[in-house]
Parts: sequence; C-alpha cells; structure tokens
Amino acid sequence: MKFSVLVEVSLRPGIADPEGATIERALPALGFEGITAMRAGKAFRFEVEAASAADAEAQAQSLAERLLSNPVIEQSHARIVEAS
Amino acid sequence: MKFSVLVEVSLRPGIADPEGATIERALPALGFEGITAMRAGKAFRFEVEAASAADAEAQAQSLAERLLSNPVIEQSHARIVEAS
Repeated sequence: MKFSVLVEVSLRPGIADPEGATIERALPALGFEGITAMRAGKAFRFEVEAASAADAEAQAQSLAERLLSNPVIEQSHARIVEAS
Repeated sequence: MKFSVLVEVSLRPGIADPEGATIERALPALGFEGITAMRAGKAFRFEVEAASAADAEAQAQSLAERLLSNPVIEQSHARIVEAS
C-alpha cells in the first residue's frame, strides 16, 4: 500500500528563530494585527510504500529524524495524511 | 480567543523542486526504499487572536497567500490546529 506522508520540521522551543521573528515584526505594518508566536519551519510531503500505516509512519519518522532535520536544534513530526 | 494555526506552503504541481528531487535521489543509498514523490516546502506556526475559528482561518489564509508564499509558484494551506 502507498501512504502519503506529511513531515513537519520545526525549531525546538527556545532555539532562536530569526526568520519567524522577522515575519512577526513585519506583520503590523502590513495590516495584520493579533498574530503572535510566529515560527518558521519546513514541510516535506512524500509517498511511502509499506505494508501498514504504522510501518509507513515509523519509516517516515525515522527518515525525518535522520535526514530531513537536525535533531540538535529541530524536532520533526511525521503523519499519514492519506492511504491508497 | 487564540487559535494556533499551521500554514503549509508547497510548490504547485508541475513546478520543478530540485530540493525534493535531490533528497529522493539520495534515499536509496541511505537505506530508505519505496519512497517517492518527495516535495519540499515550508511550514509556519503561529497564533491568531480572533473572534471565531472561521475568522482566524480566513486571516491566516490571507496572510499565507500575501506574505508567506509566492502565489505564482506556490500554494498555501492554513488550518487551525488548536483553540484556546
């Protein structure tokens, strides 16, 4: 079976996020009020061929931690968004 | 009310994604088989102060299209992940 996976990689809490801070600072001047805690990260979508959803999720999580993120400063979360 | 929002920005279908292609090409040598259709994108998390979930989502979607993505080559999708 094929599973569509979404991996979200984000900076760990406490790690400085200059990109997010810059976006947040620019928002009021651009007409957006009341937006806080902006954090920028990465998103990856891909398909995994696996026997079960649990297997696909485990593969995706392992890939996310080993190759798509830097575990020292980033956390990653894989989830199945669709099975076919 | 405060709503936590996740915005996912990804390249439109058909737009070349060299980062995703490079990751996908590297996977077999790194021990991951059966992974296809890798696409790299961006993820943003933030909090919106709004009267309703629909209002928060509309604000986030407008922000995503105007400021967080390049609508010519990217599509963006905002969704509420938590209300408090």
